[in-house]
Amino acid sequence: MKPIRKQKKNESLSESVLLERIRGTIRAREPILETGIGDDCAVLQLPGRKKPLLLTTDILNEEIHFRREWTTPFLLGYKSLTVNQSDLAAMGGKPLVFVVNLSFTGDLSASYIEELYRGMDLAARRFGGALAGGDLSRSPKGLCLSIAVLGEPWGPRPILRSGARPGDVVCVAGWLGLSAMGLRFLHQEGARAESWERILRSNRRATPSTANGWRNRCLLEHLAPEPMVSLSRWLGRQCPPTAMMDVSDGLSIDLARLCEASGTGCRVEMDRLPGCPVHLVPPEEQQHALLHGGEDYALLFTLPPKKARRALAALRARSPVPVVAIGEMSAEAGRLSLVKDGKESELPVRGYDHFARPA
Amino acid sequence: MKPIRKQKKNESLSESVLLERIRGTIRAREPILETGIGDDCAVLQLPGRKKPLLLTTDILNEEIHFRREWTTPFLLGYKSLTVNQSDLAAMGGKPLVFVVNLSFTGDLSASYIEELYRGMDLAARRFGGALAGGDLSRSPKGLCLSIAVLGEPWGPRPILRSGARPGDVVCVAGWLGLSAMGLRFLHQEGARAESWERILRSNRRATPSTANGWRNRCLLEHLAPEPMVSLSRWLGRQCPPTAMMDVSDGLSIDLARLCEASGTGCRVEMDRLPGCPVHLVPPEEQQHALLHGGEDYALLFTLPPKKARRALAALRARSPVPVVAIGEMSAEAGRLSLVKDGKESELPVRGYDHFARPA
Repeated sequence: MKPIRKQKKNESLSESVLLERIRGTIRAREPILETGIGDDCAVLQLPGRKKPLLLTTDILNEEIHFRREWTTPFLLGYKSLTVNQSDLAAMGGKPLVFVVNLSFTGDLSASYIEELYRGMDLAARRFGGALAGGDLSRSPKGLCLSIAVLGEPWGPRPILRSGARPGDVVCVAGWLGLSAMGLRFLHQEGARAESWERILRSNRRATPSTANGWRNRCLLEHLAPEPMVSLSRWLGRQCPPTAMMDVSDGLSIDLARLCEASGTGCRVEMDRLPGCPVHLVPPEEQQHALLHGGEDYALLFTLPPKKARRALAALRARSPVPVVAIGEMSAEAGRLSLVKDGKESELPVRGYDHFARPA
Repeated sequence: MKPIRKQKKNESLSESVLLERIRGTIRAREPILETGIGDDCAVLQLPGRKKPLLLTTDILNEEIHFRREWTTPFLLGYKSLTVNQSDLAAMGGKPLVFVVNLSFTGDLSASYIEELYRGMDLAARRFGGALAGGDLSRSPKGLCLSIAVLGEPWGPRPILRSGARPGDVVCVAGWLGLSAMGLRFLHQEGARAESWERILRSNRRATPSTANGWRNRCLLEHLAPEPMVSLSRWLGRQCPPTAMMDVSDGLSIDLARLCEASGTGCRVEMDRLPGCPVHLVPPEEQQHALLHGGEDYALLFTLPPKKARRALAALRARSPVPVVAIGEMSAEAGRLSLVKDGKESELPVRGYDHFARPA
């Protein structure tokens, strides 16, 4: 989950360094734990059960991940669940049950809380899973929604980040950069979130035809992102990618993570990226959102070249959002390159890091 | 989880009223969800698997559930896991894997975070389960630890709150009121938490022999409570109680919840309650801690009269903490009575409610 405030990256205490230090402290072992810290979900293999289970958790903190005045409790509840459903979609997984930890200060009414749960419930009915319980408590400041979700793969196995091979086709399903532009519009003008709520409830997210339509779509993508559950299901069952994850922190950083896990590099082509087709902000900012903007919850996956064409065509036939090949994996570990106007250069890796401090 | 600040109960927006309103908003259904909101854990019945799974979540918020200056990151990490392990013990369950959502402000060092995880790891190695991953993010204020745990029953079935019958013997395993008195001492004098950390790491929690020993034990019970995992395992496997839960919010309120779920009443005897045997605070305050103090994480369970004597003897032989019969269940739904000095009166129900407002 990428927060609403921007911070520069600094290696002194980056999220990855901190995760590495945490990993070093853990000695407790549990035989059912197949894949732990590092992928979108933990993978659990219960004895006597063929399919593994998937467990993940995500949090939305007021002032860090959202501003209460820019959204409604219904939209916020919806988003709090969809970002978790996206973590499952990222591994080819189906949501089963959620537990919710809700902390808030004394100024929130019971009606506000009910609306939060109504939003969660709509997301559960649309994208799978059911609310199984949780905990209510006071917070020292602001509203905090921490949700854990248990799921299982649609296919026989979850799709990890680590299986991509050189030559695999790199694909994206979903828009890139819209959420970051939506956040920019909120910073500039705030929002009348009630109107997004009506759009959300009516479940019409058609491809816009006007610049204003795209602007609204950006806001909607930021305030109420939707997980790629149905495409993930098709992939998991019909044509498991060699690697998959969701684009939650930005294409460049998430692509770097996928390459790191797989021990590969990659080359992507700028003009294939599924960004907003109309210019809504200055070109260099729109390009930044496309390459580095987070919270899009698009699927990033890799397919063997022989399977890619047919799989992408099948996905496109099922999808209201773009499904495109954006490049290919290469053998040179850690090398990310970007082709733009016929020239290849290094793809700069920038994305939100919670623990980086401004230099 | 009972917070460190006290609030009076008020029915206008009590936790139970709020839970009822939340329950009313939920329409999403998931066939594997057997027991949802209302018990210590959700119970999930996966197709093709005999034993159900248990899923629960709990949160520790700075200033609400703890003060950073009263504890150490190691103790705090330990407690954040043991309160979740206790939710599983409450249902006769075994912890399998945890996911951790950690939010914090910029003033916490990487070493502090590592110590938190070392504390969690010790609790996992002592009481079961392994850390499977989670999320790190910034918080707007203070440290927030939200943990979800997946487990399974030790026996064939989890022990719910709802199975107690009139005539069943009401039992408690563990001390009552010590944690609340420990909290009182912290309010009065603060703590040199480092010394508790040494005691905790050495794993010696012998029954104290002096007043000062009991005072320290109260502090330890508050700062680093331990879940009744081994007694819960024995009960779950050898002699499943008709109903069980942990005493997290105080004996009176938790007993009222158990009676409500079972449709019974109960009668308990004051002089059988396993409280601190020496006077550390004024008598009326010590009695209040015993009846209404929270965060003890003792087990509260009911046994059929024919099985109680033998089961309690077997548990006592395995337990370093008291295991006692404190009374019996009655047929009069919702009626809780207390016998003290030979006289029976109504047991007042007082316990922490996060959402009650002072009248």
